[in-house]
Amino acid sequence: MLEDKNLDDLAKLLEPDKTTPLCCYLPNAKINDSRAQRMWRSIGQAPHPDIYDDWTQENIETFHGNIENCIGSVKVPMGIAGPLRVNGLFAKGDYPIPLATSEAALVASYHRGCHLVSAAGGCTAMLLNQALNRAPAFIFKSMSDCGRFVAWAMEKFEQFQEIAESTSAYGKLLDVATTVEGNHVYLNFEFTTGDASGQNMVTIATQHICDFISETYPLEIQQIYIEGNLSGDKKASSQAYTSVRGKKVSAEVNLSAELLKKYLGATAKQLVDYWRLSAIGGVLSGTMGVQGHFANGLAALYLATGQDVACVAESAMGVTRFELNDEGGLYAAVTIPCIMVGTVGGGTGLPSQKAALELMGLQGSGNAAALAEVCAALLLAGELSIIGALATNTFTRAHNKLAR
Amino acid sequence: MLEDKNLDDLAKLLEPDKTTPLCCYLPNAKINDSRAQRMWRSIGQAPHPDIYDDWTQENIETFHGNIENCIGSVKVPMGIAGPLRVNGLFAKGDYPIPLATSEAALVASYHRGCHLVSAAGGCTAMLLNQALNRAPAFIFKSMSDCGRFVAWAMEKFEQFQEIAESTSAYGKLLDVATTVEGNHVYLNFEFTTGDASGQNMVTIATQHICDFISETYPLEIQQIYIEGNLSGDKKASSQAYTSVRGKKVSAEVNLSAELLKKYLGATAKQLVDYWRLSAIGGVLSGTMGVQGHFANGLAALYLATGQDVACVAESAMGVTRFELNDEGGLYAAVTIPCIMVGTVGGGTGLPSQKAALELMGLQGSGNAAALAEVCAALLLAGELSIIGALATNTFTRAHNKLAR
Amino acid sequence: MLEDKNLDDLAKLLEPDKTTPLCCYLPNAKINDSRAQRMWRSIGQAPHPDIYDDWTQENIETFHGNIENCIGSVKVPMGIAGPLRVNGLFAKGDYPIPLATSEAALVASYHRGCHLVSAAGGCTAMLLNQALNRAPAFIFKSMSDCGRFVAWAMEKFEQFQEIAESTSAYGKLLDVATTVEGNHVYLNFEFTTGDASGQNMVTIATQHICDFISETYPLEIQQIYIEGNLSGDKKASSQAYTSVRGKKVSAEVNLSAELLKKYLGATAKQLVDYWRLSAIGGVLSGTMGVQGHFANGLAALYLATGQDVACVAESAMGVTRFELNDEGGLYAAVTIPCIMVGTVGGGTGLPSQKAALELMGLQGSGNAAALAEVCAALLLAGELSIIGALATNTFTRAHNKLAR
Amino acid sequence: MLEDKNLDDLAKLLEPDKTTPLCCYLPNAKINDSRAQRMWRSIGQAPHPDIYDDWTQENIETFHGNIENCIGSVKVPMGIAGPLRVNGLFAKGDYPIPLATSEAALVASYHRGCHLVSAAGGCTAMLLNQALNRAPAFIFKSMSDCGRFVAWAMEKFEQFQEIAESTSAYGKLLDVATTVEGNHVYLNFEFTTGDASGQNMVTIATQHICDFISETYPLEIQQIYIEGNLSGDKKASSQAYTSVRGKKVSAEVNLSAELLKKYLGATAKQLVDYWRLSAIGGVLSGTMGVQGHFANGLAALYLATGQDVACVAESAMGVTRFELNDEGGLYAAVTIPCIMVGTVGGGTGLPSQKAALELMGLQGSGNAAALAEVCAALLLAGELSIIGALATNTFTRAHNKLAR
Repeated sequence: MLEDKNLDDLAKLLEPDKTTPLCCYLPNAKINDSRAQRMWRSIGQAPHPDIYDDWTQENIETFHGNIENCIGSVKVPMGIAGPLRVNGLFAKGDYPIPLATSEAALVASYHRGCHLVSAAGGCTAMLLNQALNRAPAFIFKSMSDCGRFVAWAMEKFEQFQEIAESTSAYGKLLDVATTVEGNHVYLNFEFTTGDASGQNMVTIATQHICDFISETYPLEIQQIYIEGNLSGDKKASSQAYTSVRGKKVSAEVNLSAELLKKYLGATAKQLVDYWRLSAIGGVLSGTMGVQGHFANGLAALYLATGQDVACVAESAMGVTRFELNDEGGLYAAVTIPCIMVGTVGGGTGLPSQKAALELMGLQGSGNAAALAEVCAALLLAGELSIIGALATNTFTRAHNKLAR
Repeated sequence: MLEDKNLDDLAKLLEPDKTTPLCCYLPNAKINDSRAQRMWRSIGQAPHPDIYDDWTQENIETFHGNIENCIGSVKVPMGIAGPLRVNGLFAKGDYPIPLATSEAALVASYHRGCHLVSAAGGCTAMLLNQALNRAPAFIFKSMSDCGRFVAWAMEKFEQFQEIAESTSAYGKLLDVATTVEGNHVYLNFEFTTGDASGQNMVTIATQHICDFISETYPLEIQQIYIEGNLSGDKKASSQAYTSVRGKKVSAEVNLSAELLKKYLGATAKQLVDYWRLSAIGGVLSGTMGVQGHFANGLAALYLATGQDVACVAESAMGVTRFELNDEGGLYAAVTIPCIMVGTVGGGTGLPSQKAALELMGLQGSGNAAALAEVCAALLLAGELSIIGALATNTFTRAHNKLAR
Repeated sequence: MLEDKNLDDLAKLLEPDKTTPLCCYLPNAKINDSRAQRMWRSIGQAPHPDIYDDWTQENIETFHGNIENCIGSVKVPMGIAGPLRVNGLFAKGDYPIPLATSEAALVASYHRGCHLVSAAGGCTAMLLNQALNRAPAFIFKSMSDCGRFVAWAMEKFEQFQEIAESTSAYGKLLDVATTVEGNHVYLNFEFTTGDASGQNMVTIATQHICDFISETYPLEIQQIYIEGNLSGDKKASSQAYTSVRGKKVSAEVNLSAELLKKYLGATAKQLVDYWRLSAIGGVLSGTMGVQGHFANGLAALYLATGQDVACVAESAMGVTRFELNDEGGLYAAVTIPCIMVGTVGGGTGLPSQKAALELMGLQGSGNAAALAEVCAALLLAGELSIIGALATNTFTRAHNKLAR
Repeated sequence: MLEDKNLDDLAKLLEPDKTTPLCCYLPNAKINDSRAQRMWRSIGQAPHPDIYDDWTQENIETFHGNIENCIGSVKVPMGIAGPLRVNGLFAKGDYPIPLATSEAALVASYHRGCHLVSAAGGCTAMLLNQALNRAPAFIFKSMSDCGRFVAWAMEKFEQFQEIAESTSAYGKLLDVATTVEGNHVYLNFEFTTGDASGQNMVTIATQHICDFISETYPLEIQQIYIEGNLSGDKKASSQAYTSVRGKKVSAEVNLSAELLKKYLGATAKQLVDYWRLSAIGGVLSGTMGVQGHFANGLAALYLATGQDVACVAESAMGVTRFELNDEGGLYAAVTIPCIMVGTVGGGTGLPSQKAALELMGLQGSGNAAALAEVCAALLLAGELSIIGALATNTFTRAHNKLAR
């Protein structure tokens, strides 16, 4: 980009500008109409009617605890795909799938996939594992001190469990994995989180455990950090495959040659040939899984249902597998190691998000496992649809038409 | 999860359910009020006032071309952080930063970082490179046929450029990289995309090039695919570091000991010690970069400004570096290889999203490069704030308080 | 490379050549002089005195069980570095380090590092974990069948342990991790292997377990494979960081400013500055750890002591960390998750390799843990030496001089 | 491992031992008999006849320039596989393959694969690209200084080329890629290296370029390093797929059902089914490619022919692809992005290694490209053999029998 710039001006452009005085907005955690009005004034503008619309003004107090410095809301179009039939351990039935996105063709593509899966009697989905981790880190003077600490900590596991349970009705400490690297120790704690996605829950439980360690460990710890960046929080990590973060789910479906022809205009062999090439393409570009576009469906469903969309960074990774089955049709499966969803807490209580969960019949306690299975089922539907489009060269046409 | 289930019921739970008839909603690409009403009817429900609110009903036709099967909108709280002073090649000034999220503490944390960066005279930001790629794949009978094809394609590069330019005023073909794997060839095309994020633009240009190849290549090509999954689209890939996907930006700032103390309550050494440990923690968990939580700020800014949030999967990866500088303060830098933003096209034209871009002064043509630099500056501010919290053990307290 | 070739000749060059008859050498597992002579005849040559030298001819029967189709031996120069003082859980004392290599400067560089470490009173080394895994894979008709199988297998764990113990005096089954992906199940078994590296031991134990499963599982398994490529065998995998493969060892040392100056001509800050830059450089190139050249020392020590040098592919990965310590010197640590060494079995019984282990005092039973700790200590010494050379720009000169 | 230790003794075991005086061996770069004798004396032992045998004593001066502190040699058994028929751009004919290893079954397994490939008329092999890189790093005060430097360096490219050519008859500077990360710049130079593997050649050329930069760049550079750990040297890196390091080669073969049955006792479908499962298994364990055991064949051929076996760390990574072909047989291909071989220089001039290259007809100038193609062909043969064994469950039996 430098070619467009005069190099002699470069230093001037890029250096700190210390001259102008600067007044930051006052931070503002409480959310109500008068505070919102004040935020608008502090940025020197009148409330914009497309950001601070009537509905938002009316409902603004429901945003409390979900945002700071609130000035309104962004409105993202919501479409509906499905119904998607899921035969899961927890999800059972035909689900309408609310998807929020501004990308043309996304809903249409997933809808087509849902249609196909449902026509086959639905897909199987199985929650394989669930836990959420936090990984505090401890710095010692030497590796020898690490050794003593690890031995001590292993003996205190039951006390850690008691402490964790005292902080939450849902967060139970399941396990801890120990990593020593020189004079650093990471304790990777795994918790249950009930029907919440649970990041705050495990942070609080871990903080209490760290406080206990700090108070009772008889020898010197140079430093304690609540998180040593080993948990994989908000980052794609291959660790998710061997452990779990959030919910690990697999979904599968068998599709006859007739259904493939009817819904995708493709043969099973065409789909398998493309899958194989794309799996290799992913490896050659240095990605971590084997998949097409998990991110699209995940982001849209997370957004519609009040999940943390930043978690797309960690969740949109996994394995898609297509192969010919013995009946001359297609066997298709997806496995996602790290689905981060809840049906209570976080953004799931905001009005439109809550309404979207209600629309699926999955709002509130007792539904998180089912929601995770629906997620996997949706991604399976999406992989079928996009691979169908790419394998038969209708991808461009579909995007072209719908983005118009 | 199996322990909670009767194994004998497993097969019954998980098998396809072919009995019930199933009627999929009619796909619906045109967006207006009567179609939205009809979609609600087809899912057997009355329009929900929190999804299909008055503002959405009024503005629904603006959603056309951004969604299908539309039933309303999801409302995500928008807060404002900043102003953030950026000294960039393209961004220059004090930017208010609209962030849409439902995660407590996110805006407050980025706001604190913005405050700190601005107090230091702002950060430097530099767009290093920009291009968007599409990677069609070609299957041949043999590797020897691949060789002939590659030789032919290299000679046609200028024609490919002409074809690309004929499809768009903005998408110029810059380069092509060739990958041969057995009897497969991937041509990884790099395009400019003007001020649009540009995924559709490069798809269309590539389709025309593929059509040209299909029509004029004198020998047999067994199969042509518009995308061979080598482009890194919607997936974190280490390829982004050595090439570019979207916009590659670096941002840096020097912070005095006084500023660190005032805004973060931390010394430079505390921050650097935490950074080092967290860099190693990331490596040990199998992540691809060295960073704390790029995903949080990116997702919130992408969402507020109408970017494709699914791209968080590919964008939220990069390198954060903290070190002591010669003046006893902190040198901090972030580098993000794959920022996917535009200021025209996609969701940037939706009303609330457009208003958010206007609020920043970055709506419309000529602003995409500046927006990318602001992005990097924001992520730098966010890394400073979160590392400040984690290094001084105030992370839990802040989350606890704001999520209440 | 195609530019140098006539394209019209390409097909001719690359196509199968079916015309000439072809006679493969008879496979030859038994090793003795007359068989070696016969192998030479079958390749139509006289025994080459540099491959089939007198020593090799005399000792050829000792090669039995380590090679097939034997025609002699390759002679790789062996040098000695050290002594290296190691203060480990298992290694204790001053070790001469035999290194086999043909790369100039390698021994000299590691020798310098050993010298430095020993002058500081030696380094600390700690075996953190040890186990070797084999991961058989099972294909089922459906994911539901996977679920039933996993539930069954978990109940049989103690029987699996008994079966494993019946196959070997050393290989004890420690644990099993289950991975379900669609209708595939991987059981990742972890075994102890005594003082052997143990790949064959765990293969045999796993085969017996698989045979038991095949015979006793009451429902259908479509396919059983002894290894599903999940074990990480002969491949760098990030899984090694969170689990273990072979032996996981960390080593650390504190070095005063005086020692750094004397042995490396460097200050601690110079070394730390280079370390930081090189850590980032590694990430940007898409590597899996943070390290300089583990492969050099590992390959040379593996080769000298009869380890499987192919395991360099999986072992040469880990984390090096350099930082300033409170005394103004350097704290340096290495952590290697996947050291594959034994002191019995495999190539450790070959005459020159056995002599090299004897020279270290580590030949035979009871020494594998100590050898792994010496390995880590050596890699620490090597990182200090190469980073010393790179940070002070003496790297080229050293290579230039010694390769002459 | 801590459970076996008394924790109170831990500190004592692991702390530096500063009491005993310590005398390091004198470094010894010149190699001859009297120096070798002296090294043995300095470690306090008599020359061991299995390390310092007659042949080694006689030939010891040939080791000069390949090792320091020499005490003899390690003898690794060499077997012969093949002949392997290769139809390459550079390799053409039936090659006997010398393999040095101490792992039972390795030669037999590759031999079986060679036999199969040759029976099919040989495999196609194609050198796709070749270059060796070195990546010096530069530290500046600020990113703005980086920008100016990059602009300057791009203009000097032709001078860099002249400097490179002045240092070597073979090393030609082909290209340079620039990476900016905050105030760091990496220049990744790509060179040709003739028939040498070339690591020293590119180091020297790069040193000269760096010296030129240091002398002529008009502004301040805070630090120059000859290598910033971005080159991928001795480390598996995904960067190799998109660029090249050493030689990138692909090899393929089509095998009829009859041949598969005769040589592997397997059907094409059995092989493809195993391949698919193992590809996924590799991904789930966090490896970088899709392959079985490239490391085995590579290490054995590198060792036999005097290549740098430490490079197995970077070379043993790539893609294996198996699929059904239209004739009902198997299409199999391997692609290895980073083969590091030479036929002159390094260890290729040592007597037994040189003899091994002669035996293949590939010793000396003009043969490196052919050797790389033979390498890829060998790995293809090896993948066929091991997948054949794993897919038909004969793997354990084969290892069991040959290791006896």
